[in-house]
Amino acid sequence: MMLFEELSSIADSIGQLLVKDDYPDKIEPIQLKQAVLSYPLRGGKRIRPAILMWCCGLLDGDPVHAKYAAAAAEVYHNWTLVHDDIIDEDEMRRGKPSTHIELSKFALDSFKTSKLKSKKFGVDFGILAGDLQHAWAINLLMKSTDIGVPCEVVNHLCRDLCQTLSRELISGEALDVEFSYKSIENVKSEEVERMMYLKTSALLNFCSCSGAKIALKTVDNSDKRIKKLSDFTSAMGIAFQLRDDWLGIFGNPESFGKPIGSDICSSKPTILILDTLSRLDEKNKLLLLNYIGADSLTQKEIDIIRNLIRKSGAEENILNKTDQLKFLALNSISGFPDNHYKKLLLELNDYLINRDN
Amino acid sequence: MMLFEELSSIADSIGQLLVKDDYPDKIEPIQLKQAVLSYPLRGGKRIRPAILMWCCGLLDGDPVHAKYAAAAAEVYHNWTLVHDDIIDEDEMRRGKPSTHIELSKFALDSFKTSKLKSKKFGVDFGILAGDLQHAWAINLLMKSTDIGVPCEVVNHLCRDLCQTLSRELISGEALDVEFSYKSIENVKSEEVERMMYLKTSALLNFCSCSGAKIALKTVDNSDKRIKKLSDFTSAMGIAFQLRDDWLGIFGNPESFGKPIGSDICSSKPTILILDTLSRLDEKNKLLLLNYIGADSLTQKEIDIIRNLIRKSGAEENILNKTDQLKFLALNSISGFPDNHYKKLLLELNDYLINRDN
Repeated sequence: MMLFEELSSIADSIGQLLVKDDYPDKIEPIQLKQAVLSYPLRGGKRIRPAILMWCCGLLDGDPVHAKYAAAAAEVYHNWTLVHDDIIDEDEMRRGKPSTHIELSKFALDSFKTSKLKSKKFGVDFGILAGDLQHAWAINLLMKSTDIGVPCEVVNHLCRDLCQTLSRELISGEALDVEFSYKSIENVKSEEVERMMYLKTSALLNFCSCSGAKIALKTVDNSDKRIKKLSDFTSAMGIAFQLRDDWLGIFGNPESFGKPIGSDICSSKPTILILDTLSRLDEKNKLLLLNYIGADSLTQKEIDIIRNLIRKSGAEENILNKTDQLKFLALNSISGFPDNHYKKLLLELNDYLINRDN
Repeated sequence: MMLFEELSSIADSIGQLLVKDDYPDKIEPIQLKQAVLSYPLRGGKRIRPAILMWCCGLLDGDPVHAKYAAAAAEVYHNWTLVHDDIIDEDEMRRGKPSTHIELSKFALDSFKTSKLKSKKFGVDFGILAGDLQHAWAINLLMKSTDIGVPCEVVNHLCRDLCQTLSRELISGEALDVEFSYKSIENVKSEEVERMMYLKTSALLNFCSCSGAKIALKTVDNSDKRIKKLSDFTSAMGIAFQLRDDWLGIFGNPESFGKPIGSDICSSKPTILILDTLSRLDEKNKLLLLNYIGADSLTQKEIDIIRNLIRKSGAEENILNKTDQLKFLALNSISGFPDNHYKKLLLELNDYLINRDN
């Protein structure tokens, strides 16, 4: 399939660019340097660089001119993951220990210190590793001038990144953290949808708009084509998150990679759960609330939960909503002239809401 | 005295610029916005903005053109303080609770949650507040184009900040953290001096060189005047830290603002302590080592420690070294034509190594 071949080619070229970039060379001490490189070289689908480069190609720009901005978007995504993993106490990332866990293992082996002190070392160095990736990402973006992107465009993209993107994305993470301090019944669907927009769509919007601005050599946010692309990735980001909600309950644990029902156990107010709670009668609502925050769930309990969600109509609702967002995204870019990159962006849009992992 | 009047005028104008800047307006939720504003509006001496603007004036530039870069340096300094305070578990900053402590108090009041969970909330939101200040600082720097600094110069300064400064400063903080996992006898003076350069001089160098580059409208790092200014702030930064070491033992607790001997209690390998240890005979060395890591120190114990350091010759040595650095800094800029800003920079150099707090 064309999509996966092209994604894998982008993953290769971004991987090579990051390996060759001299930024990490002078980081001290060595374990901090390794931590900075860890997620960026761990691979992943590289969806963000792909969106950025393909939106550049969509508007007849040369995607190669967007390569530093694309690498910047990937490293930017990585610093947010490193800090999020510390905040959410997630111990795994892409099948390997997360950054702060890798660092705490290093401390345990090297300093022969206590588990508690090693854990603190892991968090402390993890904070600093994310800080360095944050700076590295911006430095990569600024290097775009070296491959012919006009200085005015690069400086404008840097302000987009620091102002719009950082403010939205970090606010989104903060709202997500705050939800976990509230009772699930006190969180509104609209608040969760807004958090999802901030936490996911904001970065995808940066990617689509930056690709377009590099192609058009413009800094004009009112350009209709840029607005269309922002609509495209806004819808795609929410659809992506709704698919995650659905997979978290109805997915196959082997392909999904996370235990089914973990959102229930961690009391996470997902759109799917909030919608179900609003649809159930008092008795069934109490039954579902009873599982929220559980230490773990048996297969039988997962089946009961699935049944409650399905019968309430919330599953059908989320599937419809995801489909609507897919068409919204599709329609946003349907007016652009057909080319290779448009085809790729549409295939990506399809894939993201039908994926199993 | 001219120095303090001028510093206070810079503090006012930077404070006003930060209050008026619209970056924090859209940060959500409100307590995150307040945390982002907390240190930047808490005042302080604003030494970094002063160096940046005065170095611009020294080379006949208009310091007003450097105001966004100066504000950026201050907010950049603040994000590093927010993350450092989390890492070092420092509970106070400029006489008030540090950011993560303020946030944990908010959580305790608002969410009626446990002390442990409030503490975690404070650290999590503190990490995000620092991340936002990091982005805000770079956004301020980029705004320099709006007041006439050439696009290429601003792009270059942003790369200086993300590459040289961030890599050096964050590596310095990491080395400092790493020292605390080693026995004080396994840390070398040269390592500590390098850490001090990275942690303090790197940002002062960014300030002096950025001010000069804005004045000269240049991106040429090999310009002799820029090298001289980098020598000036390199020496000044180390001298500043050595003065801190000295004040931490021989200072007046009331004017210094921190308990005397806290470096000893926290087993911090300062140049002063390492030098003393290398000069003492085995018996006195063991006596001093005995106090390192103590929970607290009585006045009598502080007197014993002061006596050991004084008798070993280490106090005289650090005072001489600080004086040498002061002259090194002075000589670095003595060749520049005399003007108002040169006088201020020389007064600042004097003040920083004679200060009581």
